[in-house]
Amino acid sequence: MTHRDDQRKSGFFISFEGPEGVGKSTQLERLVEVLRARGHVVCQTREPGGTVLGEELRRLLKHLPAEDEPGPVAELLLITASRAQLVENVIEPALSRGEIVVCDRFADSTTVYQGCARGLDMKLIKALHTATVRGTWPDLTVVIDMDVKEGLRRGRLRQQEGDSPDRFEAESHSFHETVRQGFLELAREVPGRVQVISGKGSPDDVHERIMRVVDRALG
Amino acid sequence: MTHRDDQRKSGFFISFEGPEGVGKSTQLERLVEVLRARGHVVCQTREPGGTVLGEELRRLLKHLPAEDEPGPVAELLLITASRAQLVENVIEPALSRGEIVVCDRFADSTTVYQGCARGLDMKLIKALHTATVRGTWPDLTVVIDMDVKEGLRRGRLRQQEGDSPDRFEAESHSFHETVRQGFLELAREVPGRVQVISGKGSPDDVHERIMRVVDRALG
Repeated sequence: MTHRDDQRKSGFFISFEGPEGVGKSTQLERLVEVLRARGHVVCQTREPGGTVLGEELRRLLKHLPAEDEPGPVAELLLITASRAQLVENVIEPALSRGEIVVCDRFADSTTVYQGCARGLDMKLIKALHTATVRGTWPDLTVVIDMDVKEGLRRGRLRQQEGDSPDRFEAESHSFHETVRQGFLELAREVPGRVQVISGKGSPDDVHERIMRVVDRALG
Repeated sequence: MTHRDDQRKSGFFISFEGPEGVGKSTQLERLVEVLRARGHVVCQTREPGGTVLGEELRRLLKHLPAEDEPGPVAELLLITASRAQLVENVIEPALSRGEIVVCDRFADSTTVYQGCARGLDMKLIKALHTATVRGTWPDLTVVIDMDVKEGLRRGRLRQQEGDSPDRFEAESHSFHETVRQGFLELAREVPGRVQVISGKGSPDDVHERIMRVVDRALG
């Protein structure tokens, strides 16, 4: 197994995090568009997913039949299996080619969703991070933050337009509040890498805030 | 999460282990048949598999496209995710109903295949056992032992009859030898639970040996 420091040359790794409904995926798309327009080679990917295995696991995680939904531990292991595959087959190779990797969710989501919100053993989660991330942490993590009620309202609007809620979206208000607080806590613990961006205002407003943080990080 | 001691009443848990080609699945079927003929309620299951999620993971583990085969860590996590689901949704409920559970492979396969043979971190494997097995170890583990060359020869015969080799069967001779030695070592470490049965002779011979061990364990 190779390590990040040997692999990475001029690549840069950005992850997007945050609770449901904050506009994470839309903002990620807009950032990727801007970076590509500037001539960067961007590897856009997501978790769980991003590989053949990962996308199969994503499908299993979100839409298994109710009588065989994964329990919290199985969920943790499926998500980290997807990550192991993504780091090894997609993220590390892209970074070593000097690309900018932009990933919709990464290991911080596991810390917050499975650790803070589901209450699984944080020592086990850290051991899994060591085995799967292998030092390839993002250079910049953008956390989009928003009042939980507002995020859930936006999620419901989307569902009226045809999307059905997945298992995570269907969780209780207090679950989502714990998730929000988990990301804010993480930003206090890792202040250099993890940057909190307010999700208030129009998509243009949020995009501008994100570009300021990204431009500063890219130097 | 409930624990084994609260759940289990009169149930009994038997796992079958061993390298490839030793006749494990055939012998397991015969044991199940005898136990059912005696009037026992038997829950027959297998790893990876045994649940909707587990069977999907089994398919992914054995037959992903070559360009996206799971790496060793992803493999470990998929197998243990399948186990978490199986213990919680199948094995613990069956034991609590007083059934005899007979499982084709269980956590010892992870210790031996992913730990001894693939060389993954044994501390991580033990932490995963704690999170997924949750104390529900088998009462009896039957390891069928056979010379590696003989086991591989039988595997090849089966393939000539139409089965294609999966990723595990396609491993090198020294991999299978390490697996064999891993199971023998385990039997020395856990001599009460793990019983080694010689796979030599006819299927009837092996079946008789297994029945002796099972009858002693069932009392």
